[in-house]
Amino acid sequence: MSRRNSSLLVRDIGEQGLLARLQPFCPRDIVGDDAAVIPAPEQGQSLVVTTDVLVDRVHFSDRTTSPQDVGWRAAAANLSDLAAMGASPLGITVGLSVGGDVVVSWVEELYQGLNQCLQQYNVPIVGGDICRSPVVSISITAFGQVFPHRTIRRSVAQVGDAIVVSGVHGISRGGLELLLNPEFGLHLTQTERMSLIHAHQRPQPRLDILPLLENILDSQSSISLAGMDSSDGLADAVVQICRASGVGAVVERTRIPLPLVLNKVVQEVRRQEAGGRRQEAEGRKQKAESRRKESLHGKVFNPLSPVGDFRRDALVSLEQVWDWVLYGGEDFELVLCLPTELAEVLVEQLGEGAAVIGKITTGNEIWLKDSTGTYADEELSLSRGFQHFRCT
Amino acid sequence: MSRRNSSLLVRDIGEQGLLARLQPFCPRDIVGDDAAVIPAPEQGQSLVVTTDVLVDRVHFSDRTTSPQDVGWRAAAANLSDLAAMGASPLGITVGLSVGGDVVVSWVEELYQGLNQCLQQYNVPIVGGDICRSPVVSISITAFGQVFPHRTIRRSVAQVGDAIVVSGVHGISRGGLELLLNPEFGLHLTQTERMSLIHAHQRPQPRLDILPLLENILDSQSSISLAGMDSSDGLADAVVQICRASGVGAVVERTRIPLPLVLNKVVQEVRRQEAGGRRQEAEGRKQKAESRRKESLHGKVFNPLSPVGDFRRDALVSLEQVWDWVLYGGEDFELVLCLPTELAEVLVEQLGEGAAVIGKITTGNEIWLKDSTGTYADEELSLSRGFQHFRCT
Repeated sequence: MSRRNSSLLVRDIGEQGLLARLQPFCPRDIVGDDAAVIPAPEQGQSLVVTTDVLVDRVHFSDRTTSPQDVGWRAAAANLSDLAAMGASPLGITVGLSVGGDVVVSWVEELYQGLNQCLQQYNVPIVGGDICRSPVVSISITAFGQVFPHRTIRRSVAQVGDAIVVSGVHGISRGGLELLLNPEFGLHLTQTERMSLIHAHQRPQPRLDILPLLENILDSQSSISLAGMDSSDGLADAVVQICRASGVGAVVERTRIPLPLVLNKVVQEVRRQEAGGRRQEAEGRKQKAESRRKESLHGKVFNPLSPVGDFRRDALVSLEQVWDWVLYGGEDFELVLCLPTELAEVLVEQLGEGAAVIGKITTGNEIWLKDSTGTYADEELSLSRGFQHFRCT
Repeated sequence: MSRRNSSLLVRDIGEQGLLARLQPFCPRDIVGDDAAVIPAPEQGQSLVVTTDVLVDRVHFSDRTTSPQDVGWRAAAANLSDLAAMGASPLGITVGLSVGGDVVVSWVEELYQGLNQCLQQYNVPIVGGDICRSPVVSISITAFGQVFPHRTIRRSVAQVGDAIVVSGVHGISRGGLELLLNPEFGLHLTQTERMSLIHAHQRPQPRLDILPLLENILDSQSSISLAGMDSSDGLADAVVQICRASGVGAVVERTRIPLPLVLNKVVQEVRRQEAGGRRQEAEGRKQKAESRRKESLHGKVFNPLSPVGDFRRDALVSLEQVWDWVLYGGEDFELVLCLPTELAEVLVEQLGEGAAVIGKITTGNEIWLKDSTGTYADEELSLSRGFQHFRCT
């Protein structure tokens, strides 16, 4: 996966050579002019546009993400933004910055990943720009179309609306932990580990929800759909919607669906804690930390291979798991606010993982409550990364 | 202009703070969701999309370009791509990568420059993304609309077509030389220097040509308009059009209009050469070179202030001036191919600087000829920078 150990470099073939190799990823009749001509939205629909920039070592890393996965995730993030507006995709453009010492196959594999994700929805790469830069970055702009009355907006949540999640959260962050941390997830089966890693590397934009919404809302054109995607975390999405709509919310912790595999992690943590093996765990934790540091500076850790005598997890706590669920981000689910009866129909149609997790309230406070009393009430905030000038 | 000597840094206010400060540059009703909803093209028109990435120290530099000028040039380059397709602009998105140590006012001034250029054509910034990166880069995607039969394409030049330039070339590269080289342009008046620098820092996309073309072609819907912009140089544009269309060309050197101010430079070079002052000039050249190196590593050279005892230019030659005209780039004129009689009407309407400079021929050779015999015939090639994995 390294960018420096292959023979053919970008500078060996130049911009023209690189463009020629990327041409097969784009429709032939569209590319080759100063700009791309793509079909306009269908009659009566609006044009929807979104842009995302991904920077090497800020948003992705060779250690956890292959070039195909970088491409897939970049495409998924942009298609998710369209889904979050209720819009069907028309095409994307790719602005790629690379240094001359990047290997050509890295760029080709990036485009393969982009196309693997896009082809699921017949979305073409309609154009782009390639330029030289000391830092690899990928800037994607995606276009879509939506009927004005079906546009999903952050600012139109109504007091009394049910808050729906389209699927589980925390799973992408759990997959990242597995890739970074050799001590985590040892009690999981290989299939369970793969499911976490897959969630991180190949997230699915929820474009499949749009026809369901269309069916449910069929005759009710007066209903405003509020919502956004959870790319910056579940808590972030709830807070952003509430702020934009000038409302508050109460989210019930027990209603937030935990992914099965994270549920297993939670059970394991509880079992270990109950066993009073904290001191033992502390010793393992230190060993694991030094091993983790080694892996940070040495070869890539393979989370699917056996890890010698490290047989138990001690590096995650229940708080950490909840942190992944609430603030982890990159699950690319939709968080929607709509009248309770429609919300329930939607949740039923979405199936496992979808749930009504709370309600929009008056005021501007956003509370996470626990009706079982296990956790104290807490106020939700924007994701920490987001506040610290990091975007995902 | 330095990004490090002001008090308020991007990391002091974070992404949310930065977004709040940039909000005034975007229409209120458009921004604030996962994606922007913008008006779709008018009935019967196609959507046209173009993307450009600009990277610090590759495409711009604090030494020659203020943040406002970086913004202006970025907007101009994208609007020029739309003009080159015959498309009227609808909006742009901005993907901005900056480090936490960039001063906030630099980013604000960048947006001011973007808007100064865009507002001439009522084009809104409809959205974007801001993220952290060790290298400043700006990725712009512009959207426009065009009636299918009025789309300008590279691939439809016909044998016999006249080749039209919409204005003079070399002037932007001349302005850059003035900003980089303290020895150049000393015989020019302050107004002449300003005109060169202005051409480099504030180029105008030629959207004004579209209504002229519409008028000229009014009743002739069957004519295919071939062309592109000259952002990568005049020679590059002619070569790209010929390659895409599978044709050749002959360009007549004496018909390429030289900007008045570069004409004055040419006269001065000839005068000095005629005076046989080559040895003297050589001494000055060495002095100037060491001074130039100082300015590269020290404070910014001010091309408008007096330069002590350096009173004559010796650093440019006629070949260099022609190099700027043919390969300099960033003049953002249009190079169009159309039937001679229409070309002549267009040139008349465009006025000074516009000209028919040659003809499309059979075959695939692209010759620059000189009917006066002063210069030998030469084959035109893609701009050198372009070949060396640098994009402009």
